[in-house]
Amino acid sequence: MDRIVIVGGNAAGMTAASRARRCDARLRITVLEKSPNVSYSTCGIPYFVAGDVEADDLIAFTPARLRSERGIEAWTGVAVDNVLPSRRRVEGVRLDTGERVRWGYDRLLLATGVRARIPAIPGTDLEHVFSVTTLEDAVRLRPVMEASGRVAIVGAGYVGLEMAESVRRMGKRVTVFESRDHVMPSMDADMARVVAYELERHGVGVRTSSPVEALVGADGRVTGVKAQGGPGPEPADAVLLDTGVVPDTALAQGAGVRIGATGAIAVNDYMETNVPGVYAAGNCAEAFCRQRRRPVIHYVGTVAAKQGRVAGENLAGGRSRFAGTVGTTVLKVFDMAVGRTGLSSNEAARERVRTVSARIEAQDRAAYYPTARRIWVKLIVDRDSRRVVGAQSVGYGDVAKRVDVAAAAITSGLTVDALSQLDLGYTPPYGSLWDPLLVAAQAVLRKL
Amino acid sequence: MDRIVIVGGNAAGMTAASRARRCDARLRITVLEKSPNVSYSTCGIPYFVAGDVEADDLIAFTPARLRSERGIEAWTGVAVDNVLPSRRRVEGVRLDTGERVRWGYDRLLLATGVRARIPAIPGTDLEHVFSVTTLEDAVRLRPVMEASGRVAIVGAGYVGLEMAESVRRMGKRVTVFESRDHVMPSMDADMARVVAYELERHGVGVRTSSPVEALVGADGRVTGVKAQGGPGPEPADAVLLDTGVVPDTALAQGAGVRIGATGAIAVNDYMETNVPGVYAAGNCAEAFCRQRRRPVIHYVGTVAAKQGRVAGENLAGGRSRFAGTVGTTVLKVFDMAVGRTGLSSNEAARERVRTVSARIEAQDRAAYYPTARRIWVKLIVDRDSRRVVGAQSVGYGDVAKRVDVAAAAITSGLTVDALSQLDLGYTPPYGSLWDPLLVAAQAVLRKL
Repeated sequence: MDRIVIVGGNAAGMTAASRARRCDARLRITVLEKSPNVSYSTCGIPYFVAGDVEADDLIAFTPARLRSERGIEAWTGVAVDNVLPSRRRVEGVRLDTGERVRWGYDRLLLATGVRARIPAIPGTDLEHVFSVTTLEDAVRLRPVMEASGRVAIVGAGYVGLEMAESVRRMGKRVTVFESRDHVMPSMDADMARVVAYELERHGVGVRTSSPVEALVGADGRVTGVKAQGGPGPEPADAVLLDTGVVPDTALAQGAGVRIGATGAIAVNDYMETNVPGVYAAGNCAEAFCRQRRRPVIHYVGTVAAKQGRVAGENLAGGRSRFAGTVGTTVLKVFDMAVGRTGLSSNEAARERVRTVSARIEAQDRAAYYPTARRIWVKLIVDRDSRRVVGAQSVGYGDVAKRVDVAAAAITSGLTVDALSQLDLGYTPPYGSLWDPLLVAAQAVLRKL
Repeated sequence: MDRIVIVGGNAAGMTAASRARRCDARLRITVLEKSPNVSYSTCGIPYFVAGDVEADDLIAFTPARLRSERGIEAWTGVAVDNVLPSRRRVEGVRLDTGERVRWGYDRLLLATGVRARIPAIPGTDLEHVFSVTTLEDAVRLRPVMEASGRVAIVGAGYVGLEMAESVRRMGKRVTVFESRDHVMPSMDADMARVVAYELERHGVGVRTSSPVEALVGADGRVTGVKAQGGPGPEPADAVLLDTGVVPDTALAQGAGVRIGATGAIAVNDYMETNVPGVYAAGNCAEAFCRQRRRPVIHYVGTVAAKQGRVAGENLAGGRSRFAGTVGTTVLKVFDMAVGRTGLSSNEAARERVRTVSARIEAQDRAAYYPTARRIWVKLIVDRDSRRVVGAQSVGYGDVAKRVDVAAAAITSGLTVDALSQLDLGYTPPYGSLWDPLLVAAQAVLRKL
């Protein structure tokens, strides 16, 4: 009766636990989570902050239900602080009682996730300055948002923009500060411009090329944000930091687990680390990029869940392989859907891929159909191989479909020629005779 | 200055004309269409009948605009009845004056489309019995629908079901008769059952396994439908026939153009027929099925438009190739989206492909998100090669996305293993952490 211990009870950890249980009913499976909750939807946090859903809605399983329905022992409030691979043991502390605890394992999964990267600027320790990586962060910040008049968001990545929408919908004055020259830095500037327009259309202030130099405060509480080149501190009653996350690898490092060049835990396709019996999965681990042919960090729940599933099968004695990622992300920014997959133009340039790209504007379904909405699609193609290397889409209509089809095309190594004739479905209520993705492919072909 | 003549002014013909013009500004391009309209959306007809859109909305270009904006000479009301390849000439008649007319060509495209297949049963010549293949059919039948209390629809293919919705939404009593044992015969019975439920939920009578033996009438006008096994004629003030279409090949046959085993015009990848200088495209022509590796007939606008585009490039001197079809179809049936791509279980069996399939039920986005809706996904996989051979989806949410991604997967020859880990986009408002397509792939993998 092998003992499986999993450190971390979210996307990767819980998926692994459930999958291992499915594969082998006899395993003893223990999940150790330092926060008060396991198995919740991190991606749903902005909708909890906006009041669209309750915190409980985001939680799929309580420890009690995991035990009774899945036979998984889940401990919350347990901070694991030591792994001894030679003795196949983990040690930690119960945060409620301070008691030292330990578990023996036959196979161990590290699914410790990320921690917020706090920028090295003055004022981040002021009150009412928050990062948003856990549900507990969100529960803590929500009443402060409610009591605030002006909220500043530092960083215009997808978490920053989702939070900007949520807080704006609470009726607050919101300003987003981004150090780079456009919002959504993982997208190209020409597409990001449309997203910035949507933010501004809904009354969100957008300050690009505005690295924040300091958070200023009074009586220990934040009162403003000082950005480079700005006229002076802009007032803010609260600040949300979307300044990146870093893989939480402290436990791994202490156990002699190898950290990769990306800063995340190095794993092979089986989610095995260099230490026998120790696996890693989720955002603390590297993910193989199918296009770059090397490990990257891609902080999304889908990759964490997929890695967790692979790890779970292997914890149960299987030999499953993680197939890698193409970097697909979609998000909602007010009425606009935003998505990207593969490499952006900048990312491709960094890989020395010579690209040609085209951007088109189209209705997302038959233009005469009442629910037709405008979207933009950009396609990035390798000039030499003619393969699709990236796609981006934004707009008021069905963006996610085009991004997902492009993700499938990129994964399959489809050329732009093949993509331009893909047999996609059409009926006026749901699509276009010439899908915008095909129109974008035609536009690229004219340039090749 | 080469002369291009195109017979037929809809999806294939007009796409070809526009594309040829784009490729070569000097060509003389003439389109000859026997009906009163060119360049309209056949797929939009059900929405015109329901009153969602006007007939004019469906018409992209008038002959006057084609001339002034694209330099394309389009003649409506001209019935071409003779092609003389040896003299590179077509002859016809002006339907308004009865005058004989003729045009010389250097390259000719036959885009003559389809005509309705009228079943060999008594009563199809009664008044208020309609087939629906052209906009003119729809204009003619709409007032009759308005004046009718009960409408019978013979055939439950996608046109029949779209018309059933449209006429039902006009407040009529509607009954659909289908000879086979389920609606949407191009789908599997287990998926079609969900569609039948949706029809019945909206008050449409569904009679499957009910081949119609006769239409009955009085004073030359239809009064009822007599189906096999039924208790007697069921009353109907009007009847719509969705009993299939046949490629309109009369002109081609007269010109010595070879007809394929399917009954449609045989073409190569360049849309060339066996007769030098004569091309064919659209629903009168065969389409290469990528999975069966042989020509099929696939009566959808997207295939017609793609073939037309290829033909247009080649009419202008290019050497473009049509990449073939995987049989993707989507439609709307009341609140339900319905789609299929690749081979159905029956179609795969006919090709002697040994398949394994799985059907799953899922929310189309995060279950806690307010707009989440239930969908069903069925995946059909080649047991030997493990490749995806078909996918079907129905439901109240985002079905079209899953069908299009599956179409891309099938086109690329993706295995179910690869599909199960596809890096699809996720955010609670637009998708699921585990996309239903991936869940279906996992379900198939458990059976393999």
